[in-house]
Parts: sequence; C-alpha cells; structure tokens
Amino acid sequence: MKLSELFTKTRKDAPADEVSKNAQLLIKAGFVHKEMAGVYTLLPLGYKVLENIIAIVKEEMDAVGGVQMKTSALQSRDVWDKTNRWDDEVVDNWFKTKLKNGTELGLSFTNEEAYSNIVKNFVRSYKDLPIYPYDFKTIFRNELRSKSGIMRGREFYWKALYSFSKDKKEHDMFYEKMQQAYTRVYDRVGIGDKTYMTFASGGTFSKYSHEFQAVSDAGEDTIYVDEQKNIAINKEVLSDEVLIDIGLDRASLIEQKAIEVGNIFTLEHKFSEPFGLTYTNEGGQEVPVFMGSYGIGITRLMGTVAEMLSDERGLVWPENIAPARVYLARLGNIPSVVSGADELYNRLTTAGIEVIYDDRDARPGEKFADADLMGIPYRVVVSDRTVQAGRHELKQRTKDDVETLSIDNIIETLTQ
Amino acid sequence: MKLSELFTKTRKDAPADEVSKNAQLLIKAGFVHKEMAGVYTLLPLGYKVLENIIAIVKEEMDAVGGVQMKTSALQSRDVWDKTNRWDDEVVDNWFKTKLKNGTELGLSFTNEEAYSNIVKNFVRSYKDLPIYPYDFKTIFRNELRSKSGIMRGREFYWKALYSFSKDKKEHDMFYEKMQQAYTRVYDRVGIGDKTYMTFASGGTFSKYSHEFQAVSDAGEDTIYVDEQKNIAINKEVLSDEVLIDIGLDRASLIEQKAIEVGNIFTLEHKFSEPFGLTYTNEGGQEVPVFMGSYGIGITRLMGTVAEMLSDERGLVWPENIAPARVYLARLGNIPSVVSGADELYNRLTTAGIEVIYDDRDARPGEKFADADLMGIPYRVVVSDRTVQAGRHELKQRTKDDVETLSIDNIIETLTQ
Repeated sequence: MKLSELFTKTRKDAPADEVSKNAQLLIKAGFVHKEMAGVYTLLPLGYKVLENIIAIVKEEMDAVGGVQMKTSALQSRDVWDKTNRWDDEVVDNWFKTKLKNGTELGLSFTNEEAYSNIVKNFVRSYKDLPIYPYDFKTIFRNELRSKSGIMRGREFYWKALYSFSKDKKEHDMFYEKMQQAYTRVYDRVGIGDKTYMTFASGGTFSKYSHEFQAVSDAGEDTIYVDEQKNIAINKEVLSDEVLIDIGLDRASLIEQKAIEVGNIFTLEHKFSEPFGLTYTNEGGQEVPVFMGSYGIGITRLMGTVAEMLSDERGLVWPENIAPARVYLARLGNIPSVVSGADELYNRLTTAGIEVIYDDRDARPGEKFADADLMGIPYRVVVSDRTVQAGRHELKQRTKDDVETLSIDNIIETLTQ
Repeated sequence: MKLSELFTKTRKDAPADEVSKNAQLLIKAGFVHKEMAGVYTLLPLGYKVLENIIAIVKEEMDAVGGVQMKTSALQSRDVWDKTNRWDDEVVDNWFKTKLKNGTELGLSFTNEEAYSNIVKNFVRSYKDLPIYPYDFKTIFRNELRSKSGIMRGREFYWKALYSFSKDKKEHDMFYEKMQQAYTRVYDRVGIGDKTYMTFASGGTFSKYSHEFQAVSDAGEDTIYVDEQKNIAINKEVLSDEVLIDIGLDRASLIEQKAIEVGNIFTLEHKFSEPFGLTYTNEGGQEVPVFMGSYGIGITRLMGTVAEMLSDERGLVWPENIAPARVYLARLGNIPSVVSGADELYNRLTTAGIEVIYDDRDARPGEKFADADLMGIPYRVVVSDRTVQAGRHELKQRTKDDVETLSIDNIIETLTQ
C-alpha cells in the first residue's frame, strides 16, 4: 500500500485525556481513533492487525473442531432471566436500550445464555454431542471508568467458544486441547514467552479456571509465576492448600503484574440446566449437557502486544500480525530513485510480501521515525546512493545493524 | 463438513410469528436463529453464506481503491449534533443507551457523521485526496415493526463506503466506477439479471441518487423498468420532466415490486461542511471536501437471494455464495458404502470443493429433502447400487436430470 493512498497520518501527540500507553501509541501511529473513553475505531492499519490476529485465532479454533457463527448484539430479557443475570443489581455492566414499544433490550456483555438458548433447539441425543460453536463479536460493557485504551473497552471485539459435551470426561479432553490451542495463539501473536497459563478461581462448580496472563507492568492482575514449570497462580487463589494441590513450591514463585489475555472455564451444568439443555444418553436417560467457555479479547490482545513489545520509538509488531512486513522508504524524488523504489515495491508485492510504500515528499528523518512508530518489522531504504550502488538498505525494527543488499537478496531474506 | 459434526438441524416449521419467506426458509434450513422480531443469529451455514457475500463485496471495494476499517457501534452525541441528527424527533430509529454517569450514547444507525469526524483529522491538502474508506459493520435501527426477516432487521450487517473527493469532477468519475462495482456485486451473488440501477431522489443537493433494485414480489418499493435499456426509475421520482431528463419513454416502462439491495448517493458538502472537513486546493484556497456514500445491506442481500431464488422445495444458493458446493448423501451404513462415500468426500475436499457430507443414519427421502431445503448447488448420492456400479449420481439443485459418473468425472464436472 502506498502511503500517499492511505488517509491516516502519524501525529506527534495523543489526546491529553488518553492515559494508556497502548492507546497513546496506536493513536500517534494512526492505527486507532478515539471516539470516547473506552470506545475506539480501528483505522486501516489497526484493522489490518486485528484481521491478522483474527485469522490466527480462527485457524486454531477450527483446528479443534470449532464451527463459526454470528450471534446478535441485541438480547431479550427472557433469555437472561433464566439465569438471573438480567438484573442490573446482579450484572452491573449491562448497556440497556429500548424498543419503540418500551420493551427493554440488552447489548451482549457475554454469550453463555445466548448460546445455551440456541443450542437447546438442536441437541436431543448423545449423537448430537460434542459441539463447539464460536463467534467473533463486538461486546459491550458499561464500565464505570475506562482508562486502559483498547485493553479494556466499553465496546470491544472478542472471540468466544462454548463447548457442549456429554460428560466431564469428554469435556476434560477438549479443555486440554483448548489449553494447547490457546498456548499456540499467544506464541503466534508474539507474546508466548511472557504468557503463562494461570490457575484462577473456578467458581462454585469447578475447582479452578485457567487464565492466560501476559506479564506486563500495565497489568491489573497479580500472579505468581513458576518460570521453571511455565505456569502461574492468580493471587486471588494463592494458598498453601492450593499450592500443594497443584504441586507448586512457594519459594520458586515470582510475583508479577499481568494482563489477562484469555480465560477458559469449566461451566459444568450452570448454563445448561436453567435452559433445559439436556440430551438422552446411551442408556436412555435425559441428562444435562456439560459446558465449558473459552474467551479471548481480540482488541485486548492487540493492545497487550502494543503495550508489551513497544519501545521508546514506538510500536513493534511481530511479523505474524504486523499490518505489513516491510516499510519501504523512498528518499527523494529524482527519476532514478522513483523508478528504483517502484521496481522494488513491485518485486516485493509480486513475491507476496506486504509493503507500506512511503512515496511521500518528506524528509528522511520523518520517514524513519514513522517506520519506527508504526512498528513495521523491516525497513528498506531506496536513495540516490543505494540506486547507484545497486544495493539497498535493509534494517529490522528491533535491531540496529543495516545490511546493504541487492533486490534479489532482499527478497530472499524476506521470504526464507 | 460432516453433517454429524454440524450442530444445526433442519426443521419442519418456522416459528408461527415469522411471516417473511426468507426467514421462514432460513430458519427451517437451520441457517438462522430468531432472537426476536428483526434480530437474528446467523448459524454456521448462514454465516458461511454471509462470509461468501462479504468476500465478494470486499474484493469489489478493494478493486476501486477502498481501504477497510472498523468504526465503533457506540456513538457520542456531540458528533451527531453537528448535523442535527441526534434528536429522536429528527431521526426516529435511533437506539439510545447510557453510560453509568448518565451520558446518553447512540448505536450506529448509519456512518456519515462518524466518517466525517474521523477523516477531518487527516485531510489537509489536495494531496490527501481522494480517499475511499469503508467498513463492514453491525447497524442498529429501532424499527416500529420488523416483519421482513433478515431483509429489514433491527440489527443487521452492512457495508458502507464513503468517498472523499476534491471536487465534483473527481467525485463523478468514482461514482461511475462504483455503479460498475455494484453491478458486478449483484452479478456475482446471482441476482444480476433481475437487479436494476434505479434513479431515485437525490435530496436537496443532488439531482438523483441511484438505488439498486432487485425485482421481487417481496419488495417494498415500486419501480418502473425499461428492460431494453436495463435501467429503472423509482416511483417516487417518476414524472414527465424526469423521463425527458434521463431519456426514457413512459410506454416502454413496466411497473414492478422491488427490493432495494444497495444505494449510492452524492452527498456533496452536506456532511463535510458541518465538520469543517476542508482542504487546501492547488490554488491555496480552503474548500470543503466533496463526499459520496455507497451502502449495501449484506444480510438484506442474503435475504433477498433467499427470497428470489428459492422454490417450493427450499433455498437455492448460487454457486458463488452457497455454504458448500456439494451435498454428499450417503445412503445406508454398509462398509462398502461408507468407504465409498468417505473416499468421494476426501477426493472432493482435496480438490478444494466444499462438501456437506450427510453421514447421518437417516432415510434417503429425508436426505434429499434436506439437500433441497438447504439449497446446495450439487447433490451426489452414494449407495450400494452406485458403489457396485463404480458410478455415483450427480444432480443439480435447479435441474431434474441425474447423471451417473465416476469419481474422476464428478470432480472434473465440478472443477471445470
């Protein structure tokens, strides 16, 4: 994409009321626009990152048998009355609205009830199970304050999958598969080495749930990490009893601030029973479906990567989710430079490498600063000097050294 | 996809309160779930159709220079006060909600204001124009009644692109490109032969707008079609003066009911002026940006195809947007039939052909009825008889004749 065709621009400052690092950087780089506290529009480059994260999560969900659907945002009261979660006294972050006739509606803040209510229409027998529907969806939460940028929005984008299994045994097998799928997601988006599967509160019906916590000073949670075992415990459940139960030693735990980038829950019958979501088992008995839930805040994950991997010069996107692989900076407008840069742009694009082509009439320092602020993994410089030498400059965002390479070698380096 | 792994099922009847043909069919076929009047969840097969339509529209928008983003659903009052469209007296189909502190918010019913408000941050000079941002988005409209299934939802999914041009001349060139892009969209989703570009009211600042109207008895609009010239006029603007202006003859017009499946508007300065969305032209003057808007209701388009192309046996999806290309009906469970059907399933899937594999233990008549109701373009039958003959049965959804072909020939037919 040519920068001259992209309408967004970088800017020196974020709005004064924006206190989170992730949103400050994303706004300065032209990736997001702030509509109000906790509500952001994803501009084209930000949307690209989101799309890349979605594609990774979708692949991993499909690989474990997920089937995608699209549930509605508007929710009717009768569905949520079944679990007593309609009342604002019980759930304090509903956004509610009204039909013309006065009927109150809610905006999805989660999906358990909606899924149970849908699935009960289709499940009759053990032959119908297990099933793993999921969707990507805009979720609304009426947070009292919203100061964490896209990490905790009043409106945000998430993936939620719900598992509907015959029994605990079938559930446990899938739950373990999802632990692995989640681990792959965090690896692929580039924060796997700092993200720990974390034992957390399981509620009344399950001993533990599991959070995926990414270590960061911007985190709102406190966890205790056993780096050797690559596992953690949320402070809220830390006790001698629990440590013995999961086989960890207090002495080897390190306290860390962390961001919850995903969670998986065993729901057992909590949401199947109220909906009469039962099936006839092989023995002819009618028994409740055994459920689990598996969430990832997609915009939160994007914000977390922005927060964790950025540096003093700006964003740093891992190659898998970057809005482009290469930032091509053309220095100057003389015909040989223009045709040299055009040639490289065409060659890279033809090789399937996504490029942001800075064809603007701007100073070199400005172009380098923008490449760094946007966090594009590779920067290639084409100037009068490099054109004459027949070798252009290639630099990685995270490294200092600059290589001078022929076009063939640049493409070789980027496609190997 | 194996039907045994898909959780949805076909059903004999739609809910009694569902009066629209499109929703009745989509519910019976297991493509959508009705949450309430005007609000539907897209189940996995319905979501597949939606995804296919999105992919076509996205390709056409990208081809004319569109850049995708993702604007928020929650809208703040100050943005809409600028054009006097916040007041419920002015716009009567807002859904409104509130923050904890009482601040009123709206749910997007359209996007002009949001786009102008975003774009004004980035446009300074004539060098920044033209630009063509768009998004796919859930839109909310508080309709008094909602009886047209997914053709007029209270919550629906749409594509909106806004053009920001320097002047009328630049705008007109793009507007014409979009007429062609829209025509390609309707061709590709399978209703091009019944969809007419239709002259409609342009508002105060433009002579005409253009609707794309698909001829159908389920339509809410009345249009007059000149089949020879492949063009139509909306009843609301039909007059002798207009007929002369656009060069049509009243005698060659046929009155038709039609569904509006898209519209394009010249907005001129209506939404740029209130936002101070100006640029410095080549002569150094500050002038307002010239805007246009281009909408397609994606779920409405899906409902329209369901409505127009279905028959007494059920849905009929064009190959481009069908949830799968082939419905593979396995008749019986004897080992030779199971292995024959499995082999065909694997061969088709390997060839990149999407298949719904009916591996259920069900009667042949039931399988054929489901294949027809779901509207899958091709049906292949594998039975004891076809396995013994080494040739299976291939039938098109829209034709009566059945061919018996070898696996090689089936794949050849489907990939040619």
